[in-house]
Amino acid sequence: MGKRPLDILNNALGNPVIIKLKGERSFRGTLEGYDIHMNLVLDNAEELSDTENEKKMGTVVVRGDNVVYISP
Amino acid sequence: MGKRPLDILNNALGNPVIIKLKGERSFRGTLEGYDIHMNLVLDNAEELSDTENEKKMGTVVVRGDNVVYISP
Amino acid sequence: MGKRPLDILNNALGNPVIIKLKGERSFRGTLEGYDIHMNLVLDNAEELSDTENEKKMGTVVVRGDNVVYISP
Amino acid sequence: MGKRPLDILNNALGNPVIIKLKGERSFRGTLEGYDIHMNLVLDNAEELSDTENEKKMGTVVVRGDNVVYISP
Amino acid sequence: MGKRPLDILNNALGNPVIIKLKGERSFRGTLEGYDIHMNLVLDNAEELSDTENEKKMGTVVVRGDNVVYISP
Amino acid sequence: MGKRPLDILNNALGNPVIIKLKGERSFRGTLEGYDIHMNLVLDNAEELSDTENEKKMGTVVVRGDNVVYISP
Amino acid sequence: MGKRPLDILNNALGNPVIIKLKGERSFRGTLEGYDIHMNLVLDNAEELSDTENEKKMGTVVVRGDNVVYISP
Repeated sequence: MGKRPLDILNNALGNPVIIKLKGERSFRGTLEGYDIHMNLVLDNAEELSDTENEKKMGTVVVRGDNVVYISP
Repeated sequence: MGKRPLDILNNALGNPVIIKLKGERSFRGTLEGYDIHMNLVLDNAEELSDTENEKKMGTVVVRGDNVVYISP
Repeated sequence: MGKRPLDILNNALGNPVIIKLKGERSFRGTLEGYDIHMNLVLDNAEELSDTENEKKMGTVVVRGDNVVYISP
Repeated sequence: MGKRPLDILNNALGNPVIIKLKGERSFRGTLEGYDIHMNLVLDNAEELSDTENEKKMGTVVVRGDNVVYISP
Repeated sequence: MGKRPLDILNNALGNPVIIKLKGERSFRGTLEGYDIHMNLVLDNAEELSDTENEKKMGTVVVRGDNVVYISP
Repeated sequence: MGKRPLDILNNALGNPVIIKLKGERSFRGTLEGYDIHMNLVLDNAEELSDTENEKKMGTVVVRGDNVVYISP
Repeated sequence: MGKRPLDILNNALGNPVIIKLKGERSFRGTLEGYDIHMNLVLDNAEELSDTENEKKMGTVVVRGDNVVYISP
């Protein structure tokens, strides 16, 4: 299976990531945790938007079924 | 797995949270409970809206599959 | 896990609730039952609508995957 | 759990019901069977429509994931 | 549970059925098989359309999650 | 259960099939494999389109939840 | 079952692939890993777009439920 997707997330813990959600929403932040559903914990999270300023959000727990991709 | 997403919810019990749902609906309230599906219990819940006044709702049970993110 | 979501439903049995469904549909009625999928039984149910008069429906069984939130 | 949703369906066997499906489709008919997924069997089913005449359909097996609610 | 939905499908084997799919697609054909997911096998299948001529398709295997209803 | 849907796929191995996906996408190709989720392997696959020329794609692995139907 | 879909992914490890996601998003990159949900790891990933320039993204973890097809 090569590098398993969840192992890549594990290697990214403590590091900045971009996550893209369904419906064009994106976050940038530090990946602090995840689980097998790809529920994610981001710290220092900012919501990115083409049309608005960035919105600083502190900690966010993202439900995994919204995730399109995660880029460490 | 770092900080597990449900542990973050556990730490937020009794504290104010913002939850964002699919379809642009948002709530602010006190997180009083959750389960493994991310079904949530909010107390003193208010529905937030860009276009309308806030709507005070008391207690709400949110079905987890609607959740995009939770910000403690 | 604090107050579990299904316990809140259990406490609401026999009492009036508002339920909001996906697609902006809402019901008001007496919560008479539920199961672990959040399938719900309402008695004296009325469908609420911004654009039409309320529609009285007697008993309704709502499939849980339509539920956004339940407010006791 | 109060009256369980599937028990309400069981009590409705042999009786007329209205079922509302996602996407505004509705049926009226006699509930002849169901299973735990809320797959349903209707007899003497008619599809209801705001814009067209009723369409008589005899027996229909409805896949449960389409169901919004069932009203006995 | 009355007549179970899959039993109705079993009784319809070898007989003509109409199946309605999500997104307004319909097929007419002979039901030759099914499984517990309501995946279906139709023979002599024709795709029905309000706007186009019928399209003859021979055998089709329909994935069950597309099914709205089956009418024997 | 009559002819089981996955048996029909098994009989079609090595033969040309048309597959229709959700969102009006279609492929033509040789069915080289499948699994219980209806994930499919096509060889010599061509994407069909009403509005564009056919696009030759070699081998494609299609995730089963996109499939509407498969016609051998 | 012929060639199993996940075996095709296994054979593609270390090689360039195109992946098409729901909502018309596409990536090109080197397949570095996958799991049984078709969660994927791409290296040297580029997001392809008809309307914008390609966006170079390094490593991406794609959640499997977004995948339409993978072409090695």
